Amino acid sequence: MNLMTDAAAAAAADAAELGPSLTLRDEMLAAGLLIDTGENGLYGRSQTFEDVLDRLNVAITQLGKDQQPEVLRFPPAMRRTDFEDSEYLKSFPNLAGTIHSFCGNDMGHHRLLRALDDAMAERDDDRDDAWMEQQKPTRVVLTPAACYPIYPVMARRGPLPAEGRTVDVLSYCFRHEPSLDPGRMQMFRQREYVRLGSAEQVMAFRQMWIERGELLVELLKLPVEVDLANDPFFGRGGKIVADSQRAQALKFELLIPVADPRGKTACLSFNYHMDHFGAIWKIVCDDGSVAHTGCVGFGMERITLALFRHHGLDVNAWPDEVRALLWGDTEARVAHAMQMTQTATAGGDPA
Amino acid sequence: MNLMTDAAAAAAADAAELGPSLTLRDEMLAAGLLIDTGENGLYGRSQTFEDVLDRLNVAITQLGKDQQPEVLRFPPAMRRTDFEDSEYLKSFPNLAGTIHSFCGNDMGHHRLLRALDDAMAERDDDRDDAWMEQQKPTRVVLTPAACYPIYPVMARRGPLPAEGRTVDVLSYCFRHEPSLDPGRMQMFRQREYVRLGSAEQVMAFRQMWIERGELLVELLKLPVEVDLANDPFFGRGGKIVADSQRAQALKFELLIPVADPRGKTACLSFNYHMDHFGAIWKIVCDDGSVAHTGCVGFGMERITLALFRHHGLDVNAWPDEVRALLWGDTEARVAHAMQMTQTATAGGDPA
Repeated sequence: MNLMTDAAAAAAADAAELGPSLTLRDEMLAAGLLIDTGENGLYGRSQTFEDVLDRLNVAITQLGKDQQPEVLRFPPAMRRTDFEDSEYLKSFPNLAGTIHSFCGNDMGHHRLLRALDDAMAERDDDRDDAWMEQQKPTRVVLTPAACYPIYPVMARRGPLPAEGRTVDVLSYCFRHEPSLDPGRMQMFRQREYVRLGSAEQVMAFRQMWIERGELLVELLKLPVEVDLANDPFFGRGGKIVADSQRAQALKFELLIPVADPRGKTACLSFNYHMDHFGAIWKIVCDDGSVAHTGCVGFGMERITLALFRHHGLDVNAWPDEVRALLWGDTEARVAHAMQMTQTATAGGDPA
Repeated sequence: MNLMTDAAAAAAADAAELGPSLTLRDEMLAAGLLIDTGENGLYGRSQTFEDVLDRLNVAITQLGKDQQPEVLRFPPAMRRTDFEDSEYLKSFPNLAGTIHSFCGNDMGHHRLLRALDDAMAERDDDRDDAWMEQQKPTRVVLTPAACYPIYPVMARRGPLPAEGRTVDVLSYCFRHEPSLDPGRMQMFRQREYVRLGSAEQVMAFRQMWIERGELLVELLKLPVEVDLANDPFFGRGGKIVADSQRAQALKFELLIPVADPRGKTACLSFNYHMDHFGAIWKIVCDDGSVAHTGCVGFGMERITLALFRHHGLDVNAWPDEVRALLWGDTEARVAHAMQMTQTATAGGDPA
């Protein structure tokens, strides 16, 4: 089975829909800020791009510092059984990436290499993938969202303390959606603060982070718009689930015009999972009730792209306030802005 | 096909061989420096672990600064056709990880979920993977070593300048080798400096980095031993290739006792690829000859683990010189040490 044709067709359709407005992608590539790998949605990053992203990351750290989160970092893969438990496959089977390996012997290896030789006799885009017939599923899958690995870890620790927990994660994530829109990468980084506790704790956390998210984006001199949203649930039944998610106001997004002329791009999201993950992994509060969870997710590449889109490709020419925030005393500037808007007071005590 | 049993058997054999000496792994988990995910070789990292690794990374940047490398960062996956071209599958088919996705419709999704439901009725370790039968290969594979994505990118730029190129990369890499030895993770970070140019340029680069690698490890107060080495080539023919690699002295490793009681662990490697990658991707020097390449690779998790192994789990109790190097003025200390040993002079001009 050859996916090249399907993927190429999808990319062509995508390009047709995006029309002539692929400006940002082309400009970022031409300026060497993103590096073409030949695969849509898979880019190298220049030192300048990474520097902006790292400094943005520092600003996010300062914004969440008073919450005293536990900082955990996971590699971009998770245990398959945990992923199966998460029910991600019910909602987004098409986006998940599973990891497969060759587990055969010398004879199988010869077969693999013969098939590979045959494929490589063809042009790149016409190569078939017959050599992969022997690839077997491993025990790991790619991380679909940065917070997924933490729930089973938190469950193993026993009941939450009375004040709940707040966790800080950052990871490359994978989503199988090859696109010419650079705001829709196949591999991208998500920074998240995750809250585990009572429904009240999680709802207060989410409200606080909507305000802080707006503050961050204002400090970055980017246009701010927060709206009710839904995830892209798969299949015919997906619309019903999406409608229900909207009716319950479980998801909000902070939208910024990035690269897609068809609409704004979600750069931050504010999610209330109710007791979904708590029930799956048996995470309980100190009173024995099932824990509720929620998270704020920062699309690191998307916000970085938004900065280049709105302030230009030359970081030295960015507005003074933005330069001062990212390359100056980030800690003091974020603290000052939080005091001014009193989001620090409102959210100072997560309990 | 159920890999659980194989993997569990391999892990059991591994544990038997490693005997009672799994001390470092257990201690790192107990101290919360590594976080158990339930899968061997897949760990979360605490803030302290990441802090050490980040500071080590800064020291490596200082050590290579005079080379003025081009800094590029790639996500932990690469285009499949480039991976196929690399000939990695000839040597290490068993270590590679390919990424697969569900590409079906509603009916296929129902079939997937039914198979998943059946599997989840079993105990975690007995679950089958029948739901994955519909997973199809995507156009991307996991990065096996940090430098792989750069060769096709460099080739597209046309002939190398007369002084060649030096590139700085860092990426999570995947190798399918579940192990109880924390020095052998399935997902780990590699930092690399990669040199592209004439054979002389690459050989001089490698010699310089053997000296600088030794210097770094001395500054970290870890035991230094550099030895000729070979890669773990697959299959019956693998020994012949390994012998040839040794006979040509293509690979050296800096070995440090880490967690494996059976032997030391390669924490840095110094590799000369001859014109292997140059020929595959048609990378040419300014005189039209095929480019040679080489790289120095830093196993970021391995060096970090070595620091905990030799200096203890409490970073505050580490030797003063090591603390000063990592948490003090890293730039000045590295520069001073390089002047003292004159590796700066020897390698100052990469051309």
